[in-house]
Amino acid sequence: MKDKFYDPKIECIQKDKIEKVQLNKFNKLLKICKKSELYKKVQLPSKIFSLEEMKNIPFTTKDQLRNCYPYGSLTLPLSEVIEVHTSSGTTGNPVPIFLTKKDLETSNKVLARTWFCNGIRKEDIFMMMGDYGLFTGGLLNHYALTYLGAMVIPMGVYSTEKQIKFLRDFKVTSMAGIASHYFRILEKFRELKVNSKELNLKIVIAAGEPYSEETRAHFEKGFGCKFMDQYGLAEINTGLAGECKYKCGLHVPWDYVYPEIINPNTEEILPEGETGELVLTTLDREANPVIRYRTGDITSITYKKCKCGRTTPRISRLKGRVDDILFVKGIKLYPSAIESVLWGMKDLVNPEGWRLKIERIKGIEELTLMVEPKSFNNETKNKIACKLKEELRIRFNICLEKNCFPDHKLKRIIDLRKK
Amino acid sequence: MKDKFYDPKIECIQKDKIEKVQLNKFNKLLKICKKSELYKKVQLPSKIFSLEEMKNIPFTTKDQLRNCYPYGSLTLPLSEVIEVHTSSGTTGNPVPIFLTKKDLETSNKVLARTWFCNGIRKEDIFMMMGDYGLFTGGLLNHYALTYLGAMVIPMGVYSTEKQIKFLRDFKVTSMAGIASHYFRILEKFRELKVNSKELNLKIVIAAGEPYSEETRAHFEKGFGCKFMDQYGLAEINTGLAGECKYKCGLHVPWDYVYPEIINPNTEEILPEGETGELVLTTLDREANPVIRYRTGDITSITYKKCKCGRTTPRISRLKGRVDDILFVKGIKLYPSAIESVLWGMKDLVNPEGWRLKIERIKGIEELTLMVEPKSFNNETKNKIACKLKEELRIRFNICLEKNCFPDHKLKRIIDLRKK
Repeated sequence: MKDKFYDPKIECIQKDKIEKVQLNKFNKLLKICKKSELYKKVQLPSKIFSLEEMKNIPFTTKDQLRNCYPYGSLTLPLSEVIEVHTSSGTTGNPVPIFLTKKDLETSNKVLARTWFCNGIRKEDIFMMMGDYGLFTGGLLNHYALTYLGAMVIPMGVYSTEKQIKFLRDFKVTSMAGIASHYFRILEKFRELKVNSKELNLKIVIAAGEPYSEETRAHFEKGFGCKFMDQYGLAEINTGLAGECKYKCGLHVPWDYVYPEIINPNTEEILPEGETGELVLTTLDREANPVIRYRTGDITSITYKKCKCGRTTPRISRLKGRVDDILFVKGIKLYPSAIESVLWGMKDLVNPEGWRLKIERIKGIEELTLMVEPKSFNNETKNKIACKLKEELRIRFNICLEKNCFPDHKLKRIIDLRKK
Repeated sequence: MKDKFYDPKIECIQKDKIEKVQLNKFNKLLKICKKSELYKKVQLPSKIFSLEEMKNIPFTTKDQLRNCYPYGSLTLPLSEVIEVHTSSGTTGNPVPIFLTKKDLETSNKVLARTWFCNGIRKEDIFMMMGDYGLFTGGLLNHYALTYLGAMVIPMGVYSTEKQIKFLRDFKVTSMAGIASHYFRILEKFRELKVNSKELNLKIVIAAGEPYSEETRAHFEKGFGCKFMDQYGLAEINTGLAGECKYKCGLHVPWDYVYPEIINPNTEEILPEGETGELVLTTLDREANPVIRYRTGDITSITYKKCKCGRTTPRISRLKGRVDDILFVKGIKLYPSAIESVLWGMKDLVNPEGWRLKIERIKGIEELTLMVEPKSFNNETKNKIACKLKEELRIRFNICLEKNCFPDHKLKRIIDLRKK
């Protein structure tokens, strides 16, 4: 088998054919789920006869997963589990993710397909900068990359200096990390006078948080190589969907998860192409399956065949989180849209340096955008305000500030309206 | 196969029989080594006819491994390597450790035997507190534990509070970490009023640094369970040798490494039972083999059959590092001996809280021991000085201090004589 990481039998199959596989797997899943405390409490059918019927099945929410911490979502005896991960647990109990030996093998096969789709090969010298340990983005991607045969340097969250030393010394060809971390590396490049031409980088994966095409172009220029996107989440799996070289959406492994897009308010399934909340059902996990999980992530889906030949559904690059969509002054505002406007003014501002405060003053919603300008003066302020008004049809107060630089998974939006 | 993690064919074999296997493996190793830059520079025989001849083969030192950073110790094309680790690299370049798929499989089999020997089973709920990422103690032990089938929580270096929360919530039965970290957990137990009886701990592994039997007893009391020792090092492998339930030395996997004990000054091989520096040769690594590596660790070795039935050689629990042996006033002093004396005075002092300063004042060596007393008075000071003089035959100046608490791999000895 020449390329076991590219499987046309699954990745280029016709939609109606894979739907039979999906239906079959989902009905097996329903039987497995009955064994967990979590799903014993939920009204589930014993069988469905078409994927159409998915719409009648209750969603699973993050709160439900949290409430059955630590062992309530498990469908198997503990002795069958060989590894546990958890979500970060910054608010309330963490969500545990249990994996059996088979779960890990399946994970490796699916994630290796994503990395292969991204362009990673056995010959690559790969530096993994995600947090190892409990975080799924470290270990589970690491496993898949070594399974693919790349040489993985498990760098973890060491200092940026050490990461740059290893980039050079080991002649790293490819790496992965949280999108905003690359701003920090570029900053260090400037400080240490590193020229990207002295590096061997070919493909870099920036994931873990939404970022604009303009940010991507900025990275590609700074690192002198291609930047690729991936999507994943602790509750289902990391590195789940990834871009191919045509960068026209992220390929979803439809034999492993069943994706839907819903209207987050009405909970209705949206048609192909419309933007809403991504809902995922695991089709292939035995210890810790999840049915119709509301990911909270905003995207759209297409089933059109990709130029790369894959027929797998593609989700658009993330537009943000359901919690992040702002309804201000009767208008729906995505944080990524603000960033795009700032990129259009990159001579005036540092486009990655911004924060937004929303408050209600005497009953009226006020938006204050803090940005880092190239020079501090009122003219800059006015230009930014005008451009934003023009593009987003909303009036912003502009506040010029130093150090609006984003940090690891920084909250950019400070919404004081509910207070 | 009932217990693939206990292999009597290797672990209970007669010494003369395993020696044939060792000789065979070593001769294969000599051929492999010729392919690395490192060993091309070294005068190696093409074959030896008995293990006796080992004594004529040059040692490998940490400096040699550092000097061929990054790729000089590699015997295979890079594309065969799937994982890299490094030593900490606190002084100079780090030492890289390369592993092929086969190296990792072999590592899993050997380390799983160590964990099994320690008493860990498939049913265990295991919390791994080592640093993940580049550090071999995290990932390589993690692999072996999941291979053994235990349920591993890859905790990493999260906060002690979170570790205690997980201990309780997941009903952890077993865990591993750096010895001194358990002092910190016990401290937190007191603070949070955790009673060890409410936990499910059965066996805890404390490794990574030498600690006395008294410290072990202190841990066993505080955690209400058995504490076991392990020995490993980045350059060869982590979790290499471990205690069985009889706690009479650490079983060395003699099919995987060939151990010798040498006099660190004359470099002569020492007879069974004598204390000196441990030297290890890898017998089963393909990407990154090491011949007669001077570990710098002080121990002794015995080939007597253990009460557990294993015939594998056992090294005594570490007495310290070659760099730590102190020659003061013409006497050889092990830091562990100081700690033992302090444990004998635990009503007066906190035995884990101490540091030693050595300086030469007007040509005379002066030793100042900083200790944390239960109460600050001159009587305590005199009692400590007398006891140390009595047991170690050396006069110490005593300095009573707060917060001599050990930290992660703390340097206890401050030797100012060379300045």
